[in-house]
Amino acid sequence: MTDKTVRGKQIMDRLEAGAGDRVTGRLAELDPDLPRLITDYAFADVVGRPGLDLRTREMLTVAALTAMGTAPGQLEFHMRGALNVGVSEKELLEVVIQMAVYAGIPACMNGITAYRSALDARDDPA
Amino acid sequence: MTDKTVRGKQIMDRLEAGAGDRVTGRLAELDPDLPRLITDYAFADVVGRPGLDLRTREMLTVAALTAMGTAPGQLEFHMRGALNVGVSEKELLEVVIQMAVYAGIPACMNGITAYRSALDARDDPA
Amino acid sequence: MTDKTVRGKQIMDRLEAGAGDRVTGRLAELDPDLPRLITDYAFADVVGRPGLDLRTREMLTVAALTAMGTAPGQLEFHMRGALNVGVSEKELLEVVIQMAVYAGIPACMNGITAYRSALDARDDPA
Amino acid sequence: MTDKTVRGKQIMDRLEAGAGDRVTGRLAELDPDLPRLITDYAFADVVGRPGLDLRTREMLTVAALTAMGTAPGQLEFHMRGALNVGVSEKELLEVVIQMAVYAGIPACMNGITAYRSALDARDDPA
Amino acid sequence: MTDKTVRGKQIMDRLEAGAGDRVTGRLAELDPDLPRLITDYAFADVVGRPGLDLRTREMLTVAALTAMGTAPGQLEFHMRGALNVGVSEKELLEVVIQMAVYAGIPACMNGITAYRSALDARDDPA
Amino acid sequence: MTDKTVRGKQIMDRLEAGAGDRVTGRLAELDPDLPRLITDYAFADVVGRPGLDLRTREMLTVAALTAMGTAPGQLEFHMRGALNVGVSEKELLEVVIQMAVYAGIPACMNGITAYRSALDARDDPA
Repeated sequence: MTDKTVRGKQIMDRLEAGAGDRVTGRLAELDPDLPRLITDYAFADVVGRPGLDLRTREMLTVAALTAMGTAPGQLEFHMRGALNVGVSEKELLEVVIQMAVYAGIPACMNGITAYRSALDARDDPA
Repeated sequence: MTDKTVRGKQIMDRLEAGAGDRVTGRLAELDPDLPRLITDYAFADVVGRPGLDLRTREMLTVAALTAMGTAPGQLEFHMRGALNVGVSEKELLEVVIQMAVYAGIPACMNGITAYRSALDARDDPA
Repeated sequence: MTDKTVRGKQIMDRLEAGAGDRVTGRLAELDPDLPRLITDYAFADVVGRPGLDLRTREMLTVAALTAMGTAPGQLEFHMRGALNVGVSEKELLEVVIQMAVYAGIPACMNGITAYRSALDARDDPA
Repeated sequence: MTDKTVRGKQIMDRLEAGAGDRVTGRLAELDPDLPRLITDYAFADVVGRPGLDLRTREMLTVAALTAMGTAPGQLEFHMRGALNVGVSEKELLEVVIQMAVYAGIPACMNGITAYRSALDARDDPA
Repeated sequence: MTDKTVRGKQIMDRLEAGAGDRVTGRLAELDPDLPRLITDYAFADVVGRPGLDLRTREMLTVAALTAMGTAPGQLEFHMRGALNVGVSEKELLEVVIQMAVYAGIPACMNGITAYRSALDARDDPA
Repeated sequence: MTDKTVRGKQIMDRLEAGAGDRVTGRLAELDPDLPRLITDYAFADVVGRPGLDLRTREMLTVAALTAMGTAPGQLEFHMRGALNVGVSEKELLEVVIQMAVYAGIPACMNGITAYRSALDARDDPA
């Protein structure tokens, strides 16, 4: 495992304990190079860039996924991640509400559904 | 003009000097109630909510519009707005780069085009 | 509750009996100002504008949500709403079919799934 | 030319005088079967179905294209078409404004830009 | 049943045994002309065009539906179809991975979920 | 320059002579690590994976960008690229036409516009 892969997994684990191993493990079943797409590229090379802290970055990701509306599972993951890196529940809700203006009320409502699920998952981790 | 309308226009003017009057003036030509959709709802009631500062909110808007890819003119407006409320050029570029992961490289490249235009507009205001 | 809020809830109740209280009640659990985003802005200020009747407006909403494809739950809600404000089943199906041309066959097929669910919900209200 | 092709072209010509020949002529340069995709399928078989009048159908198309935001040229075409089959300027503006709720303010603003262009084109046909 | 309808159903049956009758049967319950939208237009007139073989066409469809992210059920259907017309599991996975670049990692991850389901369905047909 | 960067640029140059230097040069003006996002990740690590040839991959990219409809400039680039790596004009048109079924007629029409531009650019390189 390269330094870059380790760095990427550490960021994933900050978002959710164990996420690094869990996600890469499942991807490695399909193709040996696939996990690095997530660890090395997405997390180490992009999300891990200096210039913005992880807390801000997770808010940006939540904003984008709420606006796009095509990845509810990953939106919920990044909402839990945002909470785990220091975004408050209130701030997270603000991100979702703001998307009503830029992506429409249905996108916001879907975001609120994901927000409720993310909060429930924290109260009652599986 | 209600207090709420004034508040909304003040936020718009923080994003770009004169934006409040310019945008509402053009919308009022079409329908007398249309400007309030922007001033009262979008800016006063949503973007103007406490809980997140305007600087963070503009980064969220830039993230969402970069990811959606359907409103390049407004993306550029909010990039100029982000710079005007204290987002640094470097931070703004980080927002755009991060979208490569969540919305794809073409969305990021379009964001970079808007970013260059926003910077040019600042150097050489029309 | 302001007049505007009352007007917005009345429109929601025309779409589905009890929708005004149900939706605003759930949103108020999260934030006291959130319900007004729906009642005052979405329904009273926009959907409640004169110039188009509610029946036409619901067909437009169904068209848009079918084309966008990102909010199946709300598409089904507005299909039930369309039927409740006088859109016939046959007309509603036409809206969905037309979207095959403008948003593709998969968007139309998803719309047909929502249409079946909306019809089932009417035959057998929970 | 089959009856179906003639019917499709007649609907196109109701939207804009000469549109049937103009659009099919340009497509036929690329492939002899391509024009029928538009005339026979899109217009004769779908838009030409009974069950909704052309005036309503054009409003639905304008709603969908405004919400999707990916085809500004065709949105403007269908706005001119809507006006030509009896949608009033005021009604057309209502369609666009309503999309602010369902697809966000930027989608609505892009729709307003297309609306202005469609009105200008009527005042000053090229 | 016209020759064109037969041709369209034959293509559907190549994608999945019995798909022609199953899909058209369900659509005919809603409207007698609706099945031909799928058989005649989508499959006979477009997918059945010469110029690209069905194997390549199914890869294109999987690419598009993975990128769009709005029709997971149909994405899974076309993944099974792709495998049935000669796309290898490895090739299908490549299509999904490539979409990470053009539509973002979440679109790719959703594609991987559909890919796993398509493979499971083959191992254990319902 | 690492081996991976060289490999990525070589793929870009196969799509369009000089594209590797041109694109990375412009990105390096903004940030020294940005070019590698394109060369190393997008082209070397993903598009350069074995399992599908570049000709097939470019058709997939054209399909996805036509369906998404949010990156016309890059769609045209990849259309030129597809032609440069052995996709015939006729095959490229088939990809675009097929998207009418999966993403709607407007997406296909926008694709046809890009197709005409890509062909013009070949006949008359700037």
